[in-house]
Amino acid sequence: MAQEFSVVGKRLPRIDAKAKAIGATTYTVDLQVPRMLIGKVLHSPYPHAKIKKINKTRAEQLPGVVAVITFEDVPKVPFTMTTDDKMLRNPDAIKSLTLDQLVLNDKARFVGDPVAAVAAIDEGTAEQAIDLIEVEYEQLPAVFDAVEAMKPGAPQIHDAAKNNIASHFVYPFAQGNVEKGFAEADLVLEETFSVSKQHPCQMEPTGCVVDFDADGNLTIWSPTQEAFLLRDKMADIYGIPTGKVRYLTQFAGGSFGGRGVSLTLEPITAALSKKAGRPVKTVYTREEDLFALETRTPFIQTGKIGFKKDGTITAMETRAIANSGAYITHSPAVTSVNLGLFFGLYKCPNTSGYCDIVYTNIPISGGIRGYGNPQAMWVLEQMMDMAAEKLGIDPIEIRLKNLRETGDPCWVPFIPIEGWQPKKCIEKGCEMFGWKEKSAANKGEGIKRRGIGIATVSHVSGAFPMLSEHTNAYIKLNEDGSADLIASCVEMGQGLLTTLCQIAAEELGLRLEDIRIFNGDTSVTGYDVGQHASRSIHGTGEAVRRAAAEARKQLLERAAKMLGVSSDGLQVKDRWISLKDDGKKGISVAEVCNNAIHNLEGECLNISGRCSFEAGQSPIFQAVLAEVEVDLETGVVKPLKLIMVHDIGRAINPLIVEGQLEGGAVQSLGYALSEDFIVNKNNGVLESDNFTSYKVQSAPDVPEIEVSLVEDPVESGPFGAKSVGESATVGVPAAIGNAVYNAIGVRIKDLPITPEKVLKALKEKEQKA
Amino acid sequence: MAQEFSVVGKRLPRIDAKAKAIGATTYTVDLQVPRMLIGKVLHSPYPHAKIKKINKTRAEQLPGVVAVITFEDVPKVPFTMTTDDKMLRNPDAIKSLTLDQLVLNDKARFVGDPVAAVAAIDEGTAEQAIDLIEVEYEQLPAVFDAVEAMKPGAPQIHDAAKNNIASHFVYPFAQGNVEKGFAEADLVLEETFSVSKQHPCQMEPTGCVVDFDADGNLTIWSPTQEAFLLRDKMADIYGIPTGKVRYLTQFAGGSFGGRGVSLTLEPITAALSKKAGRPVKTVYTREEDLFALETRTPFIQTGKIGFKKDGTITAMETRAIANSGAYITHSPAVTSVNLGLFFGLYKCPNTSGYCDIVYTNIPISGGIRGYGNPQAMWVLEQMMDMAAEKLGIDPIEIRLKNLRETGDPCWVPFIPIEGWQPKKCIEKGCEMFGWKEKSAANKGEGIKRRGIGIATVSHVSGAFPMLSEHTNAYIKLNEDGSADLIASCVEMGQGLLTTLCQIAAEELGLRLEDIRIFNGDTSVTGYDVGQHASRSIHGTGEAVRRAAAEARKQLLERAAKMLGVSSDGLQVKDRWISLKDDGKKGISVAEVCNNAIHNLEGECLNISGRCSFEAGQSPIFQAVLAEVEVDLETGVVKPLKLIMVHDIGRAINPLIVEGQLEGGAVQSLGYALSEDFIVNKNNGVLESDNFTSYKVQSAPDVPEIEVSLVEDPVESGPFGAKSVGESATVGVPAAIGNAVYNAIGVRIKDLPITPEKVLKALKEKEQKA
Repeated sequence: MAQEFSVVGKRLPRIDAKAKAIGATTYTVDLQVPRMLIGKVLHSPYPHAKIKKINKTRAEQLPGVVAVITFEDVPKVPFTMTTDDKMLRNPDAIKSLTLDQLVLNDKARFVGDPVAAVAAIDEGTAEQAIDLIEVEYEQLPAVFDAVEAMKPGAPQIHDAAKNNIASHFVYPFAQGNVEKGFAEADLVLEETFSVSKQHPCQMEPTGCVVDFDADGNLTIWSPTQEAFLLRDKMADIYGIPTGKVRYLTQFAGGSFGGRGVSLTLEPITAALSKKAGRPVKTVYTREEDLFALETRTPFIQTGKIGFKKDGTITAMETRAIANSGAYITHSPAVTSVNLGLFFGLYKCPNTSGYCDIVYTNIPISGGIRGYGNPQAMWVLEQMMDMAAEKLGIDPIEIRLKNLRETGDPCWVPFIPIEGWQPKKCIEKGCEMFGWKEKSAANKGEGIKRRGIGIATVSHVSGAFPMLSEHTNAYIKLNEDGSADLIASCVEMGQGLLTTLCQIAAEELGLRLEDIRIFNGDTSVTGYDVGQHASRSIHGTGEAVRRAAAEARKQLLERAAKMLGVSSDGLQVKDRWISLKDDGKKGISVAEVCNNAIHNLEGECLNISGRCSFEAGQSPIFQAVLAEVEVDLETGVVKPLKLIMVHDIGRAINPLIVEGQLEGGAVQSLGYALSEDFIVNKNNGVLESDNFTSYKVQSAPDVPEIEVSLVEDPVESGPFGAKSVGESATVGVPAAIGNAVYNAIGVRIKDLPITPEKVLKALKEKEQKA
Repeated sequence: MAQEFSVVGKRLPRIDAKAKAIGATTYTVDLQVPRMLIGKVLHSPYPHAKIKKINKTRAEQLPGVVAVITFEDVPKVPFTMTTDDKMLRNPDAIKSLTLDQLVLNDKARFVGDPVAAVAAIDEGTAEQAIDLIEVEYEQLPAVFDAVEAMKPGAPQIHDAAKNNIASHFVYPFAQGNVEKGFAEADLVLEETFSVSKQHPCQMEPTGCVVDFDADGNLTIWSPTQEAFLLRDKMADIYGIPTGKVRYLTQFAGGSFGGRGVSLTLEPITAALSKKAGRPVKTVYTREEDLFALETRTPFIQTGKIGFKKDGTITAMETRAIANSGAYITHSPAVTSVNLGLFFGLYKCPNTSGYCDIVYTNIPISGGIRGYGNPQAMWVLEQMMDMAAEKLGIDPIEIRLKNLRETGDPCWVPFIPIEGWQPKKCIEKGCEMFGWKEKSAANKGEGIKRRGIGIATVSHVSGAFPMLSEHTNAYIKLNEDGSADLIASCVEMGQGLLTTLCQIAAEELGLRLEDIRIFNGDTSVTGYDVGQHASRSIHGTGEAVRRAAAEARKQLLERAAKMLGVSSDGLQVKDRWISLKDDGKKGISVAEVCNNAIHNLEGECLNISGRCSFEAGQSPIFQAVLAEVEVDLETGVVKPLKLIMVHDIGRAINPLIVEGQLEGGAVQSLGYALSEDFIVNKNNGVLESDNFTSYKVQSAPDVPEIEVSLVEDPVESGPFGAKSVGESATVGVPAAIGNAVYNAIGVRIKDLPITPEKVLKALKEKEQKA
């Protein structure tokens, strides 16, 4: 029997929409804190250089300048933002991580590496002061390519990393024997693919306000996704107790992983604030943002897969090189996700893989939306099509034959998959897309050729059991029957606040407008590992539901006393508490709350609930179908149609889930077709340092996108919900790649699929023919 | 056996001292909110006038002006801030209160009554716009004196109040039969006293920032003492749910009751913000602050007391007239406290009293620090000396004979007094003061005469059972073993934050520096009735202790699991959890918290505790002894020494308790000697509209003040604490009055005791002689 919901499952408008639409939402860049100064950063013009001398006297003497800092003014505490499986579950293990960054260093490792910073009374003065800092550099040879960097004799970027290999990561859940598996195969494919760096390109540029006050309290306004983790990190760097650090942010103007999961400007701004004795705000320009923020990690990744004649996979292997850039942030964890999900989609008895994480003199690479999964599926889902072609099997069929199913282990071998619907998703997608008809249709004869492609996707709901899934929520009811929800999270555009409020409203029998959420304050909210790994609804959402359930229990108990009945017999729905068998007789939630707060009867009570718990894991499945048109003369690939069918568990708000899928698809189209992070091969300068040269998708670029949800509620999430956040960024490039091949018979193995690459491949094909 | 404390009872420096000393604390006037406008108010120049027409066109046309409002632009919802015994315990009863204010009105009732307001891009523009508003007034006859106002034919200020009597309040706990009591007396004294209006004169002028946003949420930054009460009030006025209103303020730059317990600028600023569609900040100048803020209510109060020859009181009666000014705010509640405490100090079988609360055309009178008690003691404690003289009894003896004792009913007949120490306080005070020696000493022969006086005082710890004492606290522990305390209160200079942190630290076995407090946000903290009636430590403090005790229980349970012992056998002290019988063996609080948050063992848990409860009542006792020197030529009364011995229950931080007593004493000396709120008797203009004409006490004015604490822990408060906040303002005027009489043989019955009054009284005495 279907559960009846009042708020959950409804296509309700977002609670933060109106304020955002009229420009009234306060973002970090809007903040004005009393006594605040403006900070600016001086960046290295060289990709690799020793800083021999810095003369800051002229800058310091400029009227209006309050503090100038160099590596001599900052703590000598190395740090990293790498999160790995040990970090949270055993904080001592952080000692074994690559602690390769300092707040400011006496060596620059990429063009843009911070060298010095100033705090002044206004932006103009700060900019002027930056120009007055005199730096004497000793230039060092640099290397930008990961393969080159690994060769003996390449410039050494960090002393501790021999051949610039920061880490050799081996897939920990390897099974069986790949050699044996490949020997049993009728077809063994081995192919190498690569991907560019993708920048998150969030609308609000990186910035923060930091107040390192006279009492040693460090207050940080920064649109971070992982406030509690960064809080610990800042406490470590500055040698103060964790409890002294307070991270504050309700809204981030977009984040997509790149901005919010690492320390960028906070440590430098804290040093400025400490020296100045005043709060400091530092905001990067778009140009600075493009080289300063971590991007999606570029991989060169080889897949090797063995198949039986009927398409059954016998063995899978992958070997990758990840270009981490000048420092290690998220690339190791990205690698772990890449390998995990490479092997997490299809059943396979023999698996093995590794990845070398390599330093180069380019800007930092880390993890953004989708983490290592888009890179993995770019390889795997094109190889599935290649195998299907070679084996003469339909691409849908070869996938259905090998896909994991409910009850199989998920990408973590000891956790079974809950309610997966791969067959339903694929079938629905094919039907919406007209797969059969389009498969049979003519590809075109003239300059413009059409093609179709599919990719399937699995993705996580949270990082359990690799990282902790600890989260907290607290809710209290006001005397008018409304509720204040205090949750540890940031709204970065994903609709999280609305969704959490819907969960609370449903559980409390209230309306959406009765719930107000207060978020983004580490001192007031309970611990939470952050907004990453598509975990927020599945994890924090369930904490909110449980906290609301506790408050509901108190509410019904109080109502039961007032009505002189047992609380077991009561229900609450649409602000009204009544007997389950007589919905009319009862009392309003407002009356009970008012009574409880104003002690009109019995003892005073501010009805409230809290939850502190750790969520589990429950992967999603998604089918992506793409149709493209390729211009043989220009090489331009024009996407015509994109279909996504997503296995959500339960859509708390279908409008928001669909929005996440559509937004992710657009971001993913940029990754597939246009976003190219170009570092000059001679001097290391970022050439794509604005939105003209770094081309994100805009409205006219975007094809018809249709999304559809398949609901099969799971036990672990609130009202059965799984995740959606990152998933749409995963499968699109491979589906487009397959469609391009289907259209013109050439396979582009390097992202983005630019016109130049298409033309080059067509030319090579022609030459071969 | 004495309880041993680690943090409680220690003279620790205030946690907010450093930031305040260097000017880094953010007060409301410092706030900058994005898109914020500046508001200004136009005040009536007439004490009583009908507003016939307002032309705001010229103001609206001034570039930079965003909104101009008059009575036509505001809700027509009458309101009041009167809190009475029914208000909180039965919110419906608010309907019976005197709802005599509107946000803006078409009638002005005192010089300074708001008539219109503007919001503009800066202060200069707003001021200019105010001058451009054209108002046509019809002047009405005015009355400033309460006795005159009650006469038939006096100008009618509010239609509903016949003879301008807003309310006739009768003492509800009258006992016995006063006529019979007076008949049994050997001496019946009947005397009439009066007091001036005292302004709170807080350092930070009245101001607020209000954002009435596009979603109908009303966010108010205002240094209020009663955020939850004012939240409800604002919701009522603007017809929105309570949960939509958020009051925010951590620090008030002084408040003393006058600023923080009533709506002053918030309703007008909300109307400006609503019309402008942007946040608005309005801050009063000192001149505006002096006429706009409610002051201590001036009373003309008659006491009638019957005594037996041996000094035993047989009957007490009081009749008073309270000049409420143009509107009713706190004067009824002040009256109720006045009468309650008039009868609450001494045992007496026959009691009766009433007070008329009267409208006049002067600025609003309400309640400030001490509420109605200073007025009551100004009468009672001088009459005790008058009776002692007439009966030939020592003033100490007559008091000790009649004072209530532990176990007697307190000022509320059905609540017994806990651990009172009147005898100990008086004896200690006399010893410190050298009462005996000074009594016997020469008063002086020349121009300067010396005198001594005593007054005894009882005062409340909270407003229970008149008002609700509902309060909440929430505390959570971080992974470093530090704790975040989330409490509903404002720090207005009284040291509350430090004291609450000490309570939490003691209960949790932590150090003071391990606790951070986050306060002043109605949306995030639980319900609290506010900072009034000296309730915060006794009420909110106990909620904090209980919340900390719950967190402590979780902490010890987790530690017990880790140590493999029972939690009953564990103690926590100075950050270390150990076996009660082996303090060395154990585990640190930080390790347990870290383990719990990072789920290193067992389930994830952010250790936390909360408390929602209602505190009781427990009055304090205080003895005040004063020595003065009176100049017969100039009439100047110079205080030489002030001793206060205070019955605190338990001093959580003696430094802070002493500071409260000393600060209160200085404020009280101003009330006694210099602070005179002078309204011109012809035109109603406030003549004492700055700190030259309204003379507060400054450092050179203040005599040696010595305070001493008597500790007798009570059951009801945290670690036995009662209250201190208001008490020091209560007894000083009477003690000074008695000392003046002792010095020069004339009794001044009207506060303040100015040189003019002293000279006049001396002249009258001379003429009589």
